[in-house]
Amino acid sequence: MGVFDSGVGGLTVVASLRSRLPALDLVYLGDTARLPYGTKSAATVARYTHRNISFLLDRGVDGIVVACNSASAMALDTLAVSVPVWGVIEPGAAAAAACSVSRVGVIATEATVRSQAYPRALHRLRPELDVRAQPCPLLVPLVEEGWLDDEVTDRVLRRYLEPLLLWGMDTLVLGCTHYPLLEPAVRRVVGPAVTLVDSAAAVSARVAEDLATSGAEVTGSAGGRLELLVTDDSPAFARLAERILDESVRLHWVDTVPATAALMESLS
Amino acid sequence: MGVFDSGVGGLTVVASLRSRLPALDLVYLGDTARLPYGTKSAATVARYTHRNISFLLDRGVDGIVVACNSASAMALDTLAVSVPVWGVIEPGAAAAAACSVSRVGVIATEATVRSQAYPRALHRLRPELDVRAQPCPLLVPLVEEGWLDDEVTDRVLRRYLEPLLLWGMDTLVLGCTHYPLLEPAVRRVVGPAVTLVDSAAAVSARVAEDLATSGAEVTGSAGGRLELLVTDDSPAFARLAERILDESVRLHWVDTVPATAALMESLS
Repeated sequence: MGVFDSGVGGLTVVASLRSRLPALDLVYLGDTARLPYGTKSAATVARYTHRNISFLLDRGVDGIVVACNSASAMALDTLAVSVPVWGVIEPGAAAAAACSVSRVGVIATEATVRSQAYPRALHRLRPELDVRAQPCPLLVPLVEEGWLDDEVTDRVLRRYLEPLLLWGMDTLVLGCTHYPLLEPAVRRVVGPAVTLVDSAAAVSARVAEDLATSGAEVTGSAGGRLELLVTDDSPAFARLAERILDESVRLHWVDTVPATAALMESLS
Repeated sequence: MGVFDSGVGGLTVVASLRSRLPALDLVYLGDTARLPYGTKSAATVARYTHRNISFLLDRGVDGIVVACNSASAMALDTLAVSVPVWGVIEPGAAAAAACSVSRVGVIATEATVRSQAYPRALHRLRPELDVRAQPCPLLVPLVEEGWLDDEVTDRVLRRYLEPLLLWGMDTLVLGCTHYPLLEPAVRRVVGPAVTLVDSAAAVSARVAEDLATSGAEVTGSAGGRLELLVTDDSPAFARLAERILDESVRLHWVDTVPATAALMESLS
């Protein structure tokens, strides 16, 4: 199974997949040379997404999880791929639709919010739901700085979440793979009455279910290999990866640009 | 003259150049599809820098200002270019060395700090100076969010600057092209006794001086053309560009990847 994200935040999906399916072999691709996707245009995110998928297909994966919300939101509609592809939006929306009374808040990157992917997916499932989405561009940098339990982060979250709280949301979708790391901080700000939906957990549940349905169930309580590939290997990415996976990791650098590869071959 | 940065932050250099040399024609390239550079590795930043310079040379510029501190810090040593190239580090360091009593603080991205470029440049000029550099990864996102006069930003700045204040810095280098937008906030935190050095202003002064010395002085009080090119044209970049230049702007999308261009041509 291949998993990709703009950076290492998508390892929250890997962590969740490994706890559900410990015997599943995984190839993870973090496009760290081009992160973040969440501030960029749909055309650019689509180009990067198609490139990541081609790269993973060349590696022989039999399924792909698009762990990046921005890529799932902006680039999956136009895809025809020979293996199953799971995005994070649809499972996250389904989990929220299953538990909300009437008002769903969504926090996500600017690009994901602009795409309207969550409101659309929620309304396909339950047209009567009220949905409000709030872009939160500072949360990814705060997670990457490691300020997870920090009064500055709590203040930033309060700023972003107060309009949703005043509006009366009963459910909040954490619509970015970095945000599960902020779950305790989000809980401090929203209080006990709001249901939190983690899109990373939702997609890994969906993958496990679909594999079981299709007869491709992965059994075994351990032994899945995990290969971690990144397009840029700055030390900050390794630190964040270790924090998410809670183990020491080795990131391997790869180049995903096919044109460069083609040109190199033609010159060699 | 060509100017490039990882994003639109380098327009602080353009604003400063235009106020000094209003008749100078400028081509600005913001590599917004790959920003930020400041969290990425030296190898990746060098690759992007060389590509940006080739692109600007193909446009026929007669000089290049590397407005990005991370690129100036990590990628200029290895360059042989047919036109004059100015980085921001050396002029910023010279301005700080000219006014510091003994202790210079530097705030910059993680990549610029890791490169040690400011301490090296300062020690070349005045070996006896004490220099401390503080990485500030949250400042660029805060500027891009537009929280310039905001208690959250003041708190973040206090967190980053307090160790430098306790140590007794007399001069502080704003070592990132986004930071001039935070100058009032930085002043609130450091008080009146610390001299602030703006690397964007320092490089534009150096360019004006060098052009005058070489006899290529640009005279005239208006009329310089400004072309704004970006590798990704998300609306957030246009908003920030307008805030920096204080005028309405049009960003034009370009692709700087030569291999893609070559491949496209070979296919067409």
